[in-house]
Amino acid sequence: MYIEKINGPADVKRLSAGELETLSEEVRSVLLKKLSEHGGHVGPNLGMVEATIALHYVFNSPIDKIVYDVSHQSYTHKILTGRKAAFMNAAEYDEVSGYTEPSESEHDFFVIGHTSTSVSLATGLAKARDLKGDTGNVIAVIGDGSLSGGEAFEGLNNAAELGTNFIVIVNDNQMSIAENHGGLYRNLQLLRDTDGQAPCNFFTAMGLDYLYVKDGNDVQALISAFQKVKDIDHPVVVHINTLKGKGYRLAEQQQERFHYSIPFSLETGNPSVDFGNEEDYGDLTARYLLQEMKRDRTIVGITAGTPTVFGFTAERREEAGRQFVDVGIAEEHAVAMASAIAAGGGKPVFGVYSTFIQRAYDQLSQDLCINNNPALILVFWGGASSMNDVTHLCLFDIPVIGNIPNMVYLAPTCREEYLAMLEWGIHQTKHPVAVRVPANGVISRGIEPEKDYGKLLNRYEVSRRGEKVAVLGLGSFYQLGEEVVRKLKEDTGIDATLVNPRFITGVDEELLEDLKCDHTLVVTLEDGVLDGGFGEKIARYYASSDMKVLNYGIKKEFADRYDISELLRDNRLTASQIADDIKRVR
Amino acid sequence: MYIEKINGPADVKRLSAGELETLSEEVRSVLLKKLSEHGGHVGPNLGMVEATIALHYVFNSPIDKIVYDVSHQSYTHKILTGRKAAFMNAAEYDEVSGYTEPSESEHDFFVIGHTSTSVSLATGLAKARDLKGDTGNVIAVIGDGSLSGGEAFEGLNNAAELGTNFIVIVNDNQMSIAENHGGLYRNLQLLRDTDGQAPCNFFTAMGLDYLYVKDGNDVQALISAFQKVKDIDHPVVVHINTLKGKGYRLAEQQQERFHYSIPFSLETGNPSVDFGNEEDYGDLTARYLLQEMKRDRTIVGITAGTPTVFGFTAERREEAGRQFVDVGIAEEHAVAMASAIAAGGGKPVFGVYSTFIQRAYDQLSQDLCINNNPALILVFWGGASSMNDVTHLCLFDIPVIGNIPNMVYLAPTCREEYLAMLEWGIHQTKHPVAVRVPANGVISRGIEPEKDYGKLLNRYEVSRRGEKVAVLGLGSFYQLGEEVVRKLKEDTGIDATLVNPRFITGVDEELLEDLKCDHTLVVTLEDGVLDGGFGEKIARYYASSDMKVLNYGIKKEFADRYDISELLRDNRLTASQIADDIKRVR
Repeated sequence: MYIEKINGPADVKRLSAGELETLSEEVRSVLLKKLSEHGGHVGPNLGMVEATIALHYVFNSPIDKIVYDVSHQSYTHKILTGRKAAFMNAAEYDEVSGYTEPSESEHDFFVIGHTSTSVSLATGLAKARDLKGDTGNVIAVIGDGSLSGGEAFEGLNNAAELGTNFIVIVNDNQMSIAENHGGLYRNLQLLRDTDGQAPCNFFTAMGLDYLYVKDGNDVQALISAFQKVKDIDHPVVVHINTLKGKGYRLAEQQQERFHYSIPFSLETGNPSVDFGNEEDYGDLTARYLLQEMKRDRTIVGITAGTPTVFGFTAERREEAGRQFVDVGIAEEHAVAMASAIAAGGGKPVFGVYSTFIQRAYDQLSQDLCINNNPALILVFWGGASSMNDVTHLCLFDIPVIGNIPNMVYLAPTCREEYLAMLEWGIHQTKHPVAVRVPANGVISRGIEPEKDYGKLLNRYEVSRRGEKVAVLGLGSFYQLGEEVVRKLKEDTGIDATLVNPRFITGVDEELLEDLKCDHTLVVTLEDGVLDGGFGEKIARYYASSDMKVLNYGIKKEFADRYDISELLRDNRLTASQIADDIKRVR
Repeated sequence: MYIEKINGPADVKRLSAGELETLSEEVRSVLLKKLSEHGGHVGPNLGMVEATIALHYVFNSPIDKIVYDVSHQSYTHKILTGRKAAFMNAAEYDEVSGYTEPSESEHDFFVIGHTSTSVSLATGLAKARDLKGDTGNVIAVIGDGSLSGGEAFEGLNNAAELGTNFIVIVNDNQMSIAENHGGLYRNLQLLRDTDGQAPCNFFTAMGLDYLYVKDGNDVQALISAFQKVKDIDHPVVVHINTLKGKGYRLAEQQQERFHYSIPFSLETGNPSVDFGNEEDYGDLTARYLLQEMKRDRTIVGITAGTPTVFGFTAERREEAGRQFVDVGIAEEHAVAMASAIAAGGGKPVFGVYSTFIQRAYDQLSQDLCINNNPALILVFWGGASSMNDVTHLCLFDIPVIGNIPNMVYLAPTCREEYLAMLEWGIHQTKHPVAVRVPANGVISRGIEPEKDYGKLLNRYEVSRRGEKVAVLGLGSFYQLGEEVVRKLKEDTGIDATLVNPRFITGVDEELLEDLKCDHTLVVTLEDGVLDGGFGEKIARYYASSDMKVLNYGIKKEFADRYDISELLRDNRLTASQIADDIKRVR
């Protein structure tokens, strides 16, 4: 085996051509074993094995700096830069993150997790190099899927003006998470079909030099190409054609399924854990939308490269036909387009992960809310229990969305309420609406929910009227609110009031005034960062009165790969801690 | 005169070729008269006269829908669509806004003011049309300057997939506000030089059909081209070459100066109002930076298409040489690049308007703050007194920037403090820092400011220690805080405490605890929206204690073309109103 002797790029350089090919196979085996046992990004990493080996063979990291877009495809890079143990030894699997991480290695320059940033970041490294009069290559590795993001375009546009050494490896595997979308991809196809010779070339049109590698999984061809551009004195794109999932037949054939996987059986490709037929909001949403789409041909679902966030599998996308649009990884465009569809009389529904809607703040504000167009945005996975990678935190959507004028941001507490808000959101014509889909499982409260949230604007639901203490349990923390009320009753005999605020973006002044009569403390619970969040508005409302307020949520910090129970406890987000605090304050 | 008979597009269609040319001249005269007397965007509108006339001659607005990018170039459009009185009659000059405005006319589809949104918005109108089975052309008009923005690219990328009628008029006048920046512009040059024939064509690479108009100020040539694409059944780009400022010699020669102007003399081109040599923070900043740049070659100024925001005129940009980078209208790229320059050992300073930094939330969070890179962002014009157009409000930067972990957002209260924070921000190496440049004029407090804001992290400045009431006057509202303290003393004899918080992103817990000893009320003043702002954090801090808090700032709404005194009064932001409220609460 060669992989066992790789402690850094220098060891890669010692290998011969044949040995490098064997190394590729070994890396693939190691990856497949870890991925099947541990889960992670499968297709992207299998496709990048040879290119990563070739990069470290030709370039001298970390003097030469490589930046990986999204960086979910950096597993081989980690193996070759001193971290193989985390891939070969099950006990150490979690010693590395799923993305580049400077604290692990000098070969990693940034923590990255969102798309389309590599070229911009790399231009910064190049500029710093030039300002300091240093030498060294700067290389950005970006997948074709990431090219649809506006920031990548901005980076490429500026790269050409840099005028100095700058290398962009475009890893073209003809896939995003799902299929690619956009006119640009036709040009990539043309370039592949003409072996990079077509005169009409997006990259050269952007002012960049260009080189094509037909077989991006052939180590020698890659080494040859990389050697051509090494130490080049101007910006150049090396366009490599790779196969996503290469080396594992099932990943090659089911590219969308194996973009990312939880632990699975190598033999069958099936997940090792069976979640059964437990309902999830994504699935529920897609089924509901498809049914509505048939009745109303102006309803259109929109995604920015993540169709399954709201249950739109390949089959369902096919079924929806022209009533489903994937704009590529382009959240800004998705929001503006949704606003205009609504303006034009259509009924747009944009489904998006909490962590990604923050990419479109200006469009939410300008394109959508200033124009008060009645588009509907479904924000999924908002809260602390969804994704715990620092670059995929779902804790900031409330401050991002909730402080924009005109926006109506709803927080359902259960299945019934979610469906009612979804229905109202789609058909109403007066407000830009967003719904924070609960991320704590599909729970039924058995209630008959309201239907017209426009009529009820900013009126909270009092689910039980008590006295002394009022608990406002927002969205997925409503159930925590129920627990708090129970614990308080147990511990102190107090019959607290329980409120479901429903409206993240509104303060129910009438209710809040009314509570002053027989309450001395209001407690807010939100599954998100406190700063800029819901609770602060309640605190501000009562600030000059005698009413005391306790705000619970997540403190403002970038936690990474946290244990959810620990995080909740650190933030005093358990019923007993909250009950204790209430006792202390009263 | 023909213009007097134009009440709508139908009247334009009645004119002959020669009459249309005369109309162009008349429109130009009318524009120049209003612009010189009233101020507004000069160059962009003069350059678009013929194209707008040709659009309304050929197309049938509002069945055919035209969307203008930024929409600052829509004055001729307004004249031709029933609003000529607002351009010909001085008493009615303010009857129209400076941007498209649906409430003025059915020919305007969106309120627009930020860049690069037209194509995305137009795709939405096209999609709605297709879903409803309607007919009609959808046209986006976008300047070459706006093409550098990522959202425009995302829109173009998706437009090609629409597959139905969609027309993009690229108004290429070879200018942004200042000169264009980016590799893309070389391709536009190539296309102009080859009369649109060059095989390497950015637009066709994006999957779009393409047509070139050599003289974009020739009405007949434009009409001919527009007629070619009218009712086309697929997406097409019509690339027109225009002259920015055409018809006014001074605007043609000084394109940057006449992008926008306050009232000016037609004869000399000089502003009608002389602001004298009053210092402004932009100028102050550029002079300081240029001086520092000479001493430290790793300092680099960055702009995203608005160099003069921090005083970098053409001469100064020249002087800074490679230590000044204009990335084009691409704020996301600017922030990521700044983060990476800092990571690479450089000292980046990104100067940007408050209204535009909100375009880069995800990059501030992911690229900059998660990575904790020590870049410096100077946010200009934050506050209610700067720009009062709804699309250029500078009221949201605090909620956008201030709730991101790791960010240190500083609010200087005077010249001395600004310079000290600027200096610290540039050279420190531990934090991502932003500074909210005061927007209430350059005021000196005559203090010896602190130097090391890292050591002082989150410690507020107590400028006078009093009792009973503490006023926290943030940034440009510090002076208002001084007035409040004076008024309070006058009215009630109370010697209030006055605090300069300095740190928007931090709560000085030690001070806030200490105030509890001898104060019962804390008052916060911030020149920005309250929701998600600074005051709410203070309210949250004290919420479960006996301390009362009053938060002052701007309420969450989209005000447009407001009178600043009225806005302040409506928000109780005058010393006497605040003093009254304090008396009432105590």
